[in-house]
Formats: sequence, structure tokens, C-alpha cells
Amino acid sequence: MKKTKHLSGKRQEQGETGVLARIEAVAARTRVSGSGVRLGIGDDAALFEVKSGFDQILTCDWFLEGSHFLRDKHPPDAVGWKCLARAVSDVAAIGGIPRCFLLSLALPASHTGRWLDLFLGGLRRAAERFGCVLAGGDTTRRQDILINVTVVGEVRAGLAVLRSGARPGDILFVSGRLGEAELGLRLIRKSKQPASSRDPALRKHLYPEPHLALGRWLAESRLASAMMDLSDGLSTDLPRLCAASGVGARIESSKIPSVRLPKDGRGGTSVPLNLALHGGDDYELLFTVPLGKVKRIPHSQNGTRLTAIGEITKGKTLLLVNSAGREAPLPNLGWDPFRNPG
Amino acid sequence: MKKTKHLSGKRQEQGETGVLARIEAVAARTRVSGSGVRLGIGDDAALFEVKSGFDQILTCDWFLEGSHFLRDKHPPDAVGWKCLARAVSDVAAIGGIPRCFLLSLALPASHTGRWLDLFLGGLRRAAERFGCVLAGGDTTRRQDILINVTVVGEVRAGLAVLRSGARPGDILFVSGRLGEAELGLRLIRKSKQPASSRDPALRKHLYPEPHLALGRWLAESRLASAMMDLSDGLSTDLPRLCAASGVGARIESSKIPSVRLPKDGRGGTSVPLNLALHGGDDYELLFTVPLGKVKRIPHSQNGTRLTAIGEITKGKTLLLVNSAGREAPLPNLGWDPFRNPG
Repeated sequence: MKKTKHLSGKRQEQGETGVLARIEAVAARTRVSGSGVRLGIGDDAALFEVKSGFDQILTCDWFLEGSHFLRDKHPPDAVGWKCLARAVSDVAAIGGIPRCFLLSLALPASHTGRWLDLFLGGLRRAAERFGCVLAGGDTTRRQDILINVTVVGEVRAGLAVLRSGARPGDILFVSGRLGEAELGLRLIRKSKQPASSRDPALRKHLYPEPHLALGRWLAESRLASAMMDLSDGLSTDLPRLCAASGVGARIESSKIPSVRLPKDGRGGTSVPLNLALHGGDDYELLFTVPLGKVKRIPHSQNGTRLTAIGEITKGKTLLLVNSAGREAPLPNLGWDPFRNPG
Repeated sequence: MKKTKHLSGKRQEQGETGVLARIEAVAARTRVSGSGVRLGIGDDAALFEVKSGFDQILTCDWFLEGSHFLRDKHPPDAVGWKCLARAVSDVAAIGGIPRCFLLSLALPASHTGRWLDLFLGGLRRAAERFGCVLAGGDTTRRQDILINVTVVGEVRAGLAVLRSGARPGDILFVSGRLGEAELGLRLIRKSKQPASSRDPALRKHLYPEPHLALGRWLAESRLASAMMDLSDGLSTDLPRLCAASGVGARIESSKIPSVRLPKDGRGGTSVPLNLALHGGDDYELLFTVPLGKVKRIPHSQNGTRLTAIGEITKGKTLLLVNSAGREAPLPNLGWDPFRNPG
């Protein structure tokens, strides 16, 4: 019933020390000069040197056993990678770059050994890849594995791309292919084995890559009028962008870049378009571009395909045009934790 | 198995919307001009305008049902107050002021009505009291009530008071009385009724007040050489300060300002000195002052008593001098979640 301290450098404790020492090692590995982190793990809080001329981006994300990953199915290093990747994706979706993060970790004593080491290995790889320094956090013991990650990023003042900037006539783009993460999740749920880190069909679900370079380029070039990342599925996230902008949208099913089912038949009866419309966890970018700037959007950027899937409209309706050219309202079937069964 | 989005302003959802709308109302109430929050709830992340000449303070804290509070015993508004107060206390312990915070909240559908309203009421009162704006967060559904709060604060560059600055000969001070929160917790555990918000013996446990003004004064006046807040108990936290500073300490039991047991006998056989040494959750400040500056420390500041309880020593031993003048090692019996039973 008492609080656990901010990650502490205290050495003489038997219990929390072992956990903290290993987390500190990750902090040391991810720390780079010029990161802005002036005081990391070992005090009441972290100190961060802010840059003038920049706005700071603040975001946090739950990553909870049973809700967001399965203890016995998801490789611990994928849990470590993904808990950071999904929070960093929010920074990409604003057009910023991540600077540092705080890790809140609750776990059972049984998982403070090998599981923790593998988890921290994935976390460290992600931190290095995204250029994001572990600056602090909080640990405690708990029967369930609970993770919360706060990411601090920055964007040059005035360049942040919000959800609210879409205007009628803007063209709607997505990066990558949609539905790959949802397919990965289905394969993991169907299998009785723990997921293999090496299965290409699971890669997008286990090790998502936030589109930091793309988001930053769209912001700095001032090409995108609105942007967000796709975390809960296109059919749930597009209405969010439209509501924030006070607009509607019309998208064409034939243009949506959908997941390709594996040739070995493991995809079963899954329909790629449905996975693409309603599947979550893709962390692709959804962005709008004023018509006059569309020519400047390449077909792909650093190997990531960029696809126009429709347009922003007046009014507030969201329409899906099927392959026969018929329009129908886009059903909102993505993820809502208070509506969907847990 | 999919992520919940950063708190979104989306209106058309049935489920998450009700929760978010009420959280947004709190954000609107706590938002003040000049707060630095440029973009609050409703996008992928929050945007915060940073001040030049200041370092930013980043801290986060778990507040979990069963570990840090009891659903059936703790008033929801106290849960709301305390989850923010304890994270803000880390900012006070550095000598800074809080600016904004992120709320991560997981709760069962059964608690999205009255419980949530009362919780948010306590949170809003705390946010207003501490001058801290709700800038964003993440919500999801969960069987247990899980809370994580990230606070962003600031301190003028160079003025942060760390744990690591104590030097042999410095005098060790604490604010307030120690053990009051632990006594409150024992009374709540013993009682079969939910705790009363109005019981004075529970006030410190339910509604702790971070010592923001005191911490800031100690930093700006450059009187404190080291500082931390007491969250896990003096016998656990003092070793942390000493370890960070590479020093030892010698404290006198007769000088420690201990909780007064209630006159109605509810304190039972509790020993005030033990509550003061090993009880957690007090959020009083522990700080060291170089001998030459001790005269400038008043007996009380804004009604908070400041008491010299001992001195910093060479070496690494921690000694407790009892009322008969005998020295013995200070046993570390405060809170460690990986050592103590959960």
C-alpha cells in the first residue's frame, strides 16, 4: 500500500535493486551525448534540457498483459520493442522526433529474471533505433505485467501536424499496407505455440516501426494538412481525424493497400479488406494533402508505399465506395475498449 | 488486444466517449492561460511550450488498486487527489514547480459512472491546488483500476536540488511529522467501513500535500545541498539519499517529529517512532543543509515544522541514536515492493 519510488540507484536493497540495476544498464546504453537528458535514473525525477524554438510533444500509452499482449504467446523482446514503438508512433504522427521516455513497469517476482532481461533487450533495441533515451520511470511488483510508457519528443514550433487541419478537397493518404498487424494477431491467437520472433507474417504485429522519418518529412515540407497514426483501425481512426477537422471523407475500397494473406493458407477465411479497414495496431500514418501539393507526394518514401485512398469532403459523413462504385456509410468497427469485449 | 488511443476528442463513439468527455471537462477546468499547454486532449499527443533557461522535470508514478489503494475502502476523490499529489511531490523534491500532467487510466465499465466523476473531482481539485494542467493521457478498460500519472515540471537551470549533494557535516532536516500516513493506512485497514474523507486521522494518508513552496524556497535560496521526498519511509529513503551522495548519516530518535496517536485509542499498540521511521506515503521533504547555513532554516515555514534530526557523516553507515544515547545501525524496514508481501 505504499508507493514505489522513482527508479532509484539504491544499491543495498535485495529486491528492487536487481530490477533497477538492469533497467539502469539499459538507460546507460541508450544514453547519448546531446540527448538533453541531464539527470536520468537515480533521483526523484529526471531532468531534461529543453531546446528553444521547439514545442515539446508529450504522450503516454498503456501496454497491459491480457489487453495488449499475452504473457505466454508474445515474445518478451517483442513486448519491450512494441511498448515503446507504439508511444513513439504518436510522436511520428505529429511530425516530431522522440527525445526520451519514462518506463513504468509492474511485474511479478517470477518475471524479474530471464523475462525481464529479454524484455529490456527489445526495449533497448527500440530505444536505439528510435533515438530515444530511457530517462526514468517507476517499478513495482504486481501479479499482472503492466506497462506504461511516456515519450517526450519535440517539433519545431509551428510545424506540428494536428488531426484538425484537414479541409474539403484534400486527398487522403496512408503509408504501407493495412491489416498486417491484425492478421499477425489472429495467427498468434490461433496457434498453440508462443509466437516466433522470426515469422515474417508476425513481424508487423510484433515489431511495428513508427514512421518517424516520413512524419517528420511531411511536417517539415508542410505537405500534410492533417495527420495521425493508425492504431485502432482505419474505420475507427478516420472518423477521429474527420471529427477533429469538422469534415467528412470518401474512401475507395479498391485503393486501400491491404495485407496479403500468407501463401501457406494460415490466413484462413480472413478478408484482406476487412483486416485493412478494421484491424488495429498497424501504426501506419494517415494524412491529408491539399490538392495542389499532391504531385509532390512520391509513390514511396524510403521503401514505404504512400497511397491515395480517397478525399476529404464537406459535411460529416464517412463513405466507403466499393469495387462496383457503390457508396455506403463506413461502419466504425475498429477498437473501442469500452465497447468491445475485453 | 489493440491499443487505446491517446485521449481523443471523438464524439460519435458510444463507449470511450463518455469517459473521455468527462476527462476533457477536467482538462478544460484546470487549463489556465500561460500554462504552456498548446494542444491538450484530442490529438495524438499533447504539445507543450517550453521556457528557455529552465530544465524540465519528468516523473511518473503508479497508483494501482490493491497495491496503493483499496477500491472498497478509499474514497474515489482521495484516489484522484493522491495519484496526482504523489507524482507532484517528486517535483517538489527537486525544488521545481509542476506545469502539466498526463493521466493513464484503466477501469472497469462499472466504474465509468459515479466512481469516475468522484475520482475526477478529486483529481481536478488537486490539479488546481498544485497549478498543474491535465494535458493528455490514455484510457482503457480493465478489471482492476490502474492509474499512472506523468508530471512535467520545471526548475531554473542549475537550481535543481538532487539526492547526491549531501556532504559530511551537513545537517539533516525533515518537514512536518512522520508516520501520520502510515497510521491512517492502519486505521483504514482495521476498519470494516469505507474510509471517511473527513476523519482528521486519515487526512495525511488520503490527501497528502506535496511541499511545493518549501521545496522551491530551499532550491532558490540555495540552502539545501540535497533533497528528496519521503515516500517509502525514512529508514528506506534516507539510505537512498546517502547512497546517491556517497555518505553516511546519524539520526537521533528523540529528535524525529513523530505522529501523535489519536486520543480515542484507535492507534492501538502502534509505536509512533516506528511509524515515523518505517511508515511510507508521508511525502514530507528530507533535506540536508551545510552547517554554515543552518541558522537560516526557520523552525517552521508556512505552518510546516522543519526539524533537524541528525547529521551527514563520512563513511556509509546509517546510525540511529536512541533516547539513552546508544547508537545502533538503522534497520531498513520501509517499503520495497519486491521484498515486502504484495
